[in-house]
Amino acid sequence: MDRDSIVEDRLERARAGLERAGADALVCFPSSNTHYLSGFDEEPMERHLFLFVTRDRAAFLAPEMYDEQIRAESVVEDVRTWSDGEEPTAALEAIGTDLGLSEGRLLVDDRMWALFTQDLRATFHDATFGLASEVLDDLRICKDDAELEALREAAAVSDAVSESIRRLGPNAVGMTETELAAEIEDRLAAEGGSAISFESVVGSGPNGARPHHRHGEREIRPGDPVVLDFGTVVDGYPGDQTRTVVFAGDPPDDYEDVHEAVLEAQSTAVEAVEPGVEASEVDRAARTVLEERGYGDRFVHRTGHGVGLDLHEPPYIAADTDCRLEPGMVFSVEPGVYLEGEYGVRIEDLVVVTEDGCERLNHSPRTWRPLPEEC
Amino acid sequence: MDRDSIVEDRLERARAGLERAGADALVCFPSSNTHYLSGFDEEPMERHLFLFVTRDRAAFLAPEMYDEQIRAESVVEDVRTWSDGEEPTAALEAIGTDLGLSEGRLLVDDRMWALFTQDLRATFHDATFGLASEVLDDLRICKDDAELEALREAAAVSDAVSESIRRLGPNAVGMTETELAAEIEDRLAAEGGSAISFESVVGSGPNGARPHHRHGEREIRPGDPVVLDFGTVVDGYPGDQTRTVVFAGDPPDDYEDVHEAVLEAQSTAVEAVEPGVEASEVDRAARTVLEERGYGDRFVHRTGHGVGLDLHEPPYIAADTDCRLEPGMVFSVEPGVYLEGEYGVRIEDLVVVTEDGCERLNHSPRTWRPLPEEC
Repeated sequence: MDRDSIVEDRLERARAGLERAGADALVCFPSSNTHYLSGFDEEPMERHLFLFVTRDRAAFLAPEMYDEQIRAESVVEDVRTWSDGEEPTAALEAIGTDLGLSEGRLLVDDRMWALFTQDLRATFHDATFGLASEVLDDLRICKDDAELEALREAAAVSDAVSESIRRLGPNAVGMTETELAAEIEDRLAAEGGSAISFESVVGSGPNGARPHHRHGEREIRPGDPVVLDFGTVVDGYPGDQTRTVVFAGDPPDDYEDVHEAVLEAQSTAVEAVEPGVEASEVDRAARTVLEERGYGDRFVHRTGHGVGLDLHEPPYIAADTDCRLEPGMVFSVEPGVYLEGEYGVRIEDLVVVTEDGCERLNHSPRTWRPLPEEC
Repeated sequence: MDRDSIVEDRLERARAGLERAGADALVCFPSSNTHYLSGFDEEPMERHLFLFVTRDRAAFLAPEMYDEQIRAESVVEDVRTWSDGEEPTAALEAIGTDLGLSEGRLLVDDRMWALFTQDLRATFHDATFGLASEVLDDLRICKDDAELEALREAAAVSDAVSESIRRLGPNAVGMTETELAAEIEDRLAAEGGSAISFESVVGSGPNGARPHHRHGEREIRPGDPVVLDFGTVVDGYPGDQTRTVVFAGDPPDDYEDVHEAVLEAQSTAVEAVEPGVEASEVDRAARTVLEERGYGDRFVHRTGHGVGLDLHEPPYIAADTDCRLEPGMVFSVEPGVYLEGEYGVRIEDLVVVTEDGCERLNHSPRTWRPLPEEC
């Protein structure tokens, strides 16, 4: 299937979903949902831009200056525009009347800004509101072949850069985290991909114990465990991979035990992945290993998150997730142990659920020592 | 004033705003509003994270893994947490009861995701809802000295890189737009700043006629007008500057006239900026010049946007904006002419309104020829 047919097919399945949900329309704004349902790829913006998908029609309402871009990227041909300097709410009311939305049940983009949901509520005051995920989670959660191809390619870029960075060995000592992050991002750009997936994490020593630390002015020292978490976007799909390494010198006394525990938790969780298993069981598998090894209370986050057009999307691999795994689902498996004031260890790969188990998308060594320089 | 006192002062002014607006609380999520009101700087995320500011209290509800980061970055000391694997709505209800929000008028972050506003509405079903901008626009629109310092520094980085890129002259010919964008972003990183303000625009030839084109695989040719629009973030504040240049060869016949018209429109609009003037008059000033020179219908967007912690924020410099300029307001002045299928010209500087006029933050040459190489 070519790209347009793939998107047309998604629109048809979204319509079937609307019918099952007893809803009248999806109302999306510039987001991964709009990208998924039309091909039009744009960041959220402060101007009114909506994609309406009803049971039999689809139309954009957009600022005039986006007209050409939408027509070029999107399979949806009905594009109505408003100009800078005009009030967009009149145009919103007109399209709503035309599409028969005024009294319907409207499912709005989960990430739509309050600024716009407020306007939708004021304009369509007899409508009722739900979330687009009610229909779109089921569609988006299983990836098709083209999506998997992009995710594999993004993973290959992360792997290549992870390996090349680990070959720095003692040369990384003395660099600040921010310098190393810039080096990582340069190498990601050189390997391909359109943009980084997120601001790269270089968490050295105690900074690695803060799971959401990005990078700072701390210099990497011999013996520092360093959490490296980064990725790049290929055809809209992000890579996301973590390794914890010691570039030079002897790590803290308990480090080898902690690293081994996290590695075992990660492997055990990956082995638990197969169709029919609950996402929460995968989380439990990782957590049980870390509990048995005495680090249960240092594993302070869920085991993983789905990855697709959004870096974080369903299925979430967490204790409270109600989702049975199916072939085509892609998510991270990334247990970690965080020792406040000392260091952190996290190991992360993306996996795809297959017909009879799972496939890892990342293959770079999960060891912690520097890799030898290439000859 | 130190940073903490500045933020404390903003909280006090926000409370006075709540009282004037007859509202009971601001409910923000990870956004520039939360950054502005607390110091905590984080991207929007799928986990429930809120900052509540009532008339006498302020508190975070956050995922446990953000606890340390919030305590480190924020002046708000009341941080309540929930863990991955727990349902956050129970915690939301508890904090709402404690802060007395259940029947109040709540002003939610303008960029809060529907996912969360939906939860707020379901949890606080007797509350009424408005937008945080009702109170915060007035606070944020005029920049204090520290904010202006960061904006000036960000502008200086854009200027330096703009000049160095224009010294490429004929060496830019044959590069793809994407290659040139990567070069720009490398130089921005080398000059300082924490991240690019937005994906850089390199619009060569006909691509420059699409105002929101970023960059692509087209190679820059002799005689191409190239729109260069980029910036970098310093201390949270973005630079944003545009020049249109011809790296080598002779431009299209009418190009000099178009460039001159845009330059005149930009200068005229900047000259119109002073306290007491309506934002719409600045837009009109630019538009009148382009109309008189026969390009009125090719100027398809507003003249500018405010710049602060958000790249696009009030005041918008547009025909329908109802805002009188005051000292401390910072915005872009960026008229453009877009000749479909041929090329585009846009010239943009940031300006700050002063006590008796305005100050440009950008100073790099607004000419279109390559700059001479430095000796």
